[in-house]
Amino acid sequence: MSSSRSASSGPPEPFEPKFDAQGLIPAVAVDAGNGEVLMTAYMNREALDATRKTRKATFYSRSRKKLWVKGETSGNFLAVEEIRVDCDQDCLVLRVKLPKGGAACHTGERSCFYRKLKLTGPEELERLA
Amino acid sequence: MSSSRSASSGPPEPFEPKFDAQGLIPAVAVDAGNGEVLMTAYMNREALDATRKTRKATFYSRSRKKLWVKGETSGNFLAVEEIRVDCDQDCLVLRVKLPKGGAACHTGERSCFYRKLKLTGPEELERLA
Repeated sequence: MSSSRSASSGPPEPFEPKFDAQGLIPAVAVDAGNGEVLMTAYMNREALDATRKTRKATFYSRSRKKLWVKGETSGNFLAVEEIRVDCDQDCLVLRVKLPKGGAACHTGERSCFYRKLKLTGPEELERLA
Repeated sequence: MSSSRSASSGPPEPFEPKFDAQGLIPAVAVDAGNGEVLMTAYMNREALDATRKTRKATFYSRSRKKLWVKGETSGNFLAVEEIRVDCDQDCLVLRVKLPKGGAACHTGERSCFYRKLKLTGPEELERLA
């Protein structure tokens, strides 16, 4: 075969995101540099289209019931470098870059996941070092 | 002050996970070594308790409507090293170790997120290199 495509490549696979009954799909934003999970949120079709078009992570706010460009008030936009999809297409991972010194969490922490649950004893949280 | 605790430490913060209307909380399993997102699933209270007790990631299967010890059929158990909680306690991150050469995805891929969505043109998926 003279094809330059590898034997394992076939026709392109279609993207068929499975939105839930509310029209939402969960999205996990991770730091494109070190892979750290920064935050999780939900997208509807409009948020996904806006994210792909603008390359700024855009979600659907379930509490405010509207589109939400992450960083629109704080300036902490998440620049999307890659969107990954899981095996059954019901969850997304966004590989993003935060502004230098920026925070993905509304508390001012870089990541929303800044505490851990103790694995023994009472169910208490500890701040990560 | 003679206390050995830092000024910023106060009483321990309680863990108060916010389960949704179905009694579930999403959990993102990431590789404890390199931080790669491996899979996402849901936990109910029983799954969370089992995970904390056994240190094997245990989820609630929404399709089978029962507890699901990840790896119980494949052998690809996820050994939980740390459980992180987000700011509003409605999402968990599990830092886990896969068996050597193991796969978190039922397709045999190490991670369920083995494809990316093209950012331009038609909505097609590409396998990651």
